[in-house]
Amino acid sequence: MVLKVYGPTCASTKRVLVCLLEKEVEFEVIPVDLTKGEHKDPEFLKLQPFGVVPVIQDGDYTLYESRAIMRFYADKFRSQGVELLGRTAEERGVVEQWLEVEAHNFHPPAYDLAVHVLFASLFGITPDPKVIEESEAKLLKVLDVYEDRLSKGKYLGGDFLSLADISHLPFIDYIVNKMNKGYLIKERKHVSDWWDDISSRPSWKKVNQLYPPPV
Amino acid sequence: MVLKVYGPTCASTKRVLVCLLEKEVEFEVIPVDLTKGEHKDPEFLKLQPFGVVPVIQDGDYTLYESRAIMRFYADKFRSQGVELLGRTAEERGVVEQWLEVEAHNFHPPAYDLAVHVLFASLFGITPDPKVIEESEAKLLKVLDVYEDRLSKGKYLGGDFLSLADISHLPFIDYIVNKMNKGYLIKERKHVSDWWDDISSRPSWKKVNQLYPPPV
Repeated sequence: MVLKVYGPTCASTKRVLVCLLEKEVEFEVIPVDLTKGEHKDPEFLKLQPFGVVPVIQDGDYTLYESRAIMRFYADKFRSQGVELLGRTAEERGVVEQWLEVEAHNFHPPAYDLAVHVLFASLFGITPDPKVIEESEAKLLKVLDVYEDRLSKGKYLGGDFLSLADISHLPFIDYIVNKMNKGYLIKERKHVSDWWDDISSRPSWKKVNQLYPPPV
Repeated sequence: MVLKVYGPTCASTKRVLVCLLEKEVEFEVIPVDLTKGEHKDPEFLKLQPFGVVPVIQDGDYTLYESRAIMRFYADKFRSQGVELLGRTAEERGVVEQWLEVEAHNFHPPAYDLAVHVLFASLFGITPDPKVIEESEAKLLKVLDVYEDRLSKGKYLGGDFLSLADISHLPFIDYIVNKMNKGYLIKERKHVSDWWDDISSRPSWKKVNQLYPPPV
């Protein structure tokens, strides 16, 4: 039975899809229409009790949380496709560090920015200029740290591509291609080179082409 | 050279310390006085560019982000001390899922609650009753999911203790023993049993005794 991935157009799910393509794992996608509230349906809540996507079903194995799903497939299929966790415990430690930085430092302001700049009408909220300004200011600081890090190695983990890099793809894509805020990336030489590199991967191009964002 | 752990009294650092004790890894602690802003000193920022604790230095290996550090030691010393990642890729997947739930669903409202109920004067802010009310409401919903989960297995990962469980210790301790909100835990039978079990581990008792919280 082929792996099922729920909610392919959501940014968090795209993290998982890129990972699966890089790991050469076959999958099929199951649409979940967030605008119709399908993620809050009782049947869906049996799979994901917090009512969010993504969720995967792999035979009788169910898993949610995008970064947990990525780790699972990167770990289970280490020798298949691109190695995304590093080669040693020390390298994986560094990958885990930057994956946590993505989750806790990069993602919250990037998410708030996307909600208020792109998805306000979808979420039924009024865009708040203060949130937009503060989120952008936080992102600037995070990207300054990234610029320093990426001046010392081609990728966040060092000299190898990892989950830490690909985890950034969906939201930097929003920033650059949907919010017209590409200057946040382009003004930083090493961040810009890194973005050009990771966003030109066939895996990401395929995901973005097959499952375009809802706006 | 023995492993150095910076900032032992901070809740996030205690996650790391409990993990190291369970894994029987020796360490020494380096105090970082947050009230004096030592985490923003230029020398500290060379170790942790975002200016937060914990950070570890293990010879010439430096790592930050508490959950990344826990994963690193649980992975590197799998056969030493208590196994905290599960025995198979599938078990580790489930551990990773609940560790992400801890980070993204449990931690944010627990943190906001702690900031406004316990640490407002330390942070120089006025406690906001709306934040306190909303944070508690969010926590209730998360703990209802935990109650269901823990009715099916003794621990979040299933029948074995893992990083997903011990990662909750510092903030549930605040909730129960510092904020007088133990009812959030005690009103849920399985959550309450789980808390009694994990909080009675010698590792946690030792950490809490050696490095009491700042308030």
